[in-house]
Amino acid sequence: MQRHLDVELTRLKDELVRMAGLAEAAIGLAVKALVSRDAEAAREVIASDGTINALEMEIDELCLRAMALYQPEARDLRLLAMALKINNDLERMGDQAVNIAERTLELLKEPLLKPLIDIPRMAELAQRMVKESIDAFVHQDPLRARGVCAQDDAVDSYDDQIFRELLTYMMQDPKAITRSVNLILVSRHLERIADHATNIAEDVIYLVEGKNIKHHALDPSARASA
Amino acid sequence: MQRHLDVELTRLKDELVRMAGLAEAAIGLAVKALVSRDAEAAREVIASDGTINALEMEIDELCLRAMALYQPEARDLRLLAMALKINNDLERMGDQAVNIAERTLELLKEPLLKPLIDIPRMAELAQRMVKESIDAFVHQDPLRARGVCAQDDAVDSYDDQIFRELLTYMMQDPKAITRSVNLILVSRHLERIADHATNIAEDVIYLVEGKNIKHHALDPSARASA
Repeated sequence: MQRHLDVELTRLKDELVRMAGLAEAAIGLAVKALVSRDAEAAREVIASDGTINALEMEIDELCLRAMALYQPEARDLRLLAMALKINNDLERMGDQAVNIAERTLELLKEPLLKPLIDIPRMAELAQRMVKESIDAFVHQDPLRARGVCAQDDAVDSYDDQIFRELLTYMMQDPKAITRSVNLILVSRHLERIADHATNIAEDVIYLVEGKNIKHHALDPSARASA
Repeated sequence: MQRHLDVELTRLKDELVRMAGLAEAAIGLAVKALVSRDAEAAREVIASDGTINALEMEIDELCLRAMALYQPEARDLRLLAMALKINNDLERMGDQAVNIAERTLELLKEPLLKPLIDIPRMAELAQRMVKESIDAFVHQDPLRARGVCAQDDAVDSYDDQIFRELLTYMMQDPKAITRSVNLILVSRHLERIADHATNIAEDVIYLVEGKNIKHHALDPSARASA
């Protein structure tokens, strides 16, 4: 019986890695569309969301079937419950990528406001967090998971910095307002993606160490000023 | 055995109702703080998030324990898996309320930009969706759940309208920019709350009817233009 379950768990992990790959690719393509002003790529992100959504449902079913068929013990049950949550986080990342693509299509209606420097850097960081959070899950590696959590503050700093910079643009020129607001929203979507990756990492730490660091600071002094 | 599980399931539903009540109250208080310019109330929302977070963990444990102890059959197992997801949606709503409270504290640094009409209405609608989505879950009532999904478009319309109106304010007066952006973000947070309520409602429909309407339009013609 246990061996059947192990096969299912391996399959489940593979599917979650595939799902994470799709989410990562969607984020990458959405930001590429933004930076290179490519409407076609933006529309591709929007169209590809269906694949991510379909995979979410498949993975949910996989989890529920494994729970029902193999009556797993406590630890495997927790793993399956975590997989349900992680699956949800990945799907939401896909939604955020779609939101970025939608903002991009709005932004393409006007000339480039400014060369984009921080947003692509922030996106790279967020993408890396997505990849590493799933690696941490697959390898049940709390160290890697903590690495993901530690990067969340850097993403928040980018978000703050981008917000402030774009406020300045808007103050100087009313014609910059619509584009600035749209870029602020892009930055918020990237910040949400990093949040989802952090959730996944926190779940991994809980799963492996039984310690719930969710809703707690890794470093209280750092958070207090956030 | 089954009777023990029933007791657990009833308790779980009660706890989710309590959690939804906390989320609803946090949203209500955050918007009240915004409208009546009450920093104390905003800080209360931020402080009370710990209670919601603690309850989320408790409910997760309740679900996992019920899964492990009573080896529930397919239907109850699905109910428990849904409870995990719904729990997560409710906790995120609490986070959004905190975000609104944070924006409110920013907004209180400057005089009132304009009397707030649409945001309180939008908030009322979102709160009602939260309440009704949990009612739908507790009573396993797909009709009520569909009612929640149907209201999501109205919330999106408010969000669009608020966005456009505030753009106009910013164009007319650079001094209005910071406040306008903060109000746009409040509106986005409310829109996310309504999204979470819609997720819950979609989960209920899936649970009861086995039909997955997630990621599909209730009315395809309406969504195509969205």
